[in-house]
Amino acid sequence: MAYDPDNIFAKILREEIPANRVYEDAQTLAFMDIMPRADGHLLVIPKTQCRNLLDASPEQLSAVIATTQKLSQAVMKAFGADGVTIQQFNEAAGGQEVFHLHVHVLPRHEGKSLRPPGTMGDFDLIAEHAGKIRAALD
Amino acid sequence: MAYDPDNIFAKILREEIPANRVYEDAQTLAFMDIMPRADGHLLVIPKTQCRNLLDASPEQLSAVIATTQKLSQAVMKAFGADGVTIQQFNEAAGGQEVFHLHVHVLPRHEGKSLRPPGTMGDFDLIAEHAGKIRAALD
Repeated sequence: MAYDPDNIFAKILREEIPANRVYEDAQTLAFMDIMPRADGHLLVIPKTQCRNLLDASPEQLSAVIATTQKLSQAVMKAFGADGVTIQQFNEAAGGQEVFHLHVHVLPRHEGKSLRPPGTMGDFDLIAEHAGKIRAALD
Repeated sequence: MAYDPDNIFAKILREEIPANRVYEDAQTLAFMDIMPRADGHLLVIPKTQCRNLLDASPEQLSAVIATTQKLSQAVMKAFGADGVTIQQFNEAAGGQEVFHLHVHVLPRHEGKSLRPPGTMGDFDLIAEHAGKIRAALD
């Protein structure tokens, strides 16, 4: 299926809508999920267009997985996490809701389940968590 | 934490224990999960040692994500899937049970939930699904 340039992550990339950005390089952007299933839940996306894993280029995939690693290491430090869960959804049946390739990075702590999906987070708290991640990356 | 060379995926790589292999190249191996949460559930691993995403090399990550894409495209074709869910777990708190980097590839169909984790699959059926994936890759 075709890429829709008006999806919300494309709008975040064009700075038409705000996001709590925590990292960017020439090829990728990382920003906070506004419906966090764990404290520090963030998303990594390529700056160029692709719908998901199924149509991404090798360059997009390599760049996104490298940034996913960097941010996973950062959230381990920022939140004293015990682990990290990575999720990546392709097409609606695969769980995808925004059709620009994105990887979920979920900091995890022993004995603590993920929160259910679909609940808007507290924006001040999300901004505070973004600050911790940026500090861990420095 | 250190890599344990006696984990079960290391044993699969050394062919000390069997697996339903569906694809391999110089850097990666893909084989069927024996506790499939969806028909065609498979795993992609690097052939070289690393514990998970947190300690992997850029080369291991690029190779694993490229094979993950190839197998995701293959399961879409093999099972007429509507989507693919990717999961990757790091450390026990992150959901990891075998401490050799692995990516779960889960073919998905509209309206069909994943089965609960931890239930052994039917070995004949898994072998049949492996055959479909190999055929889709040809």
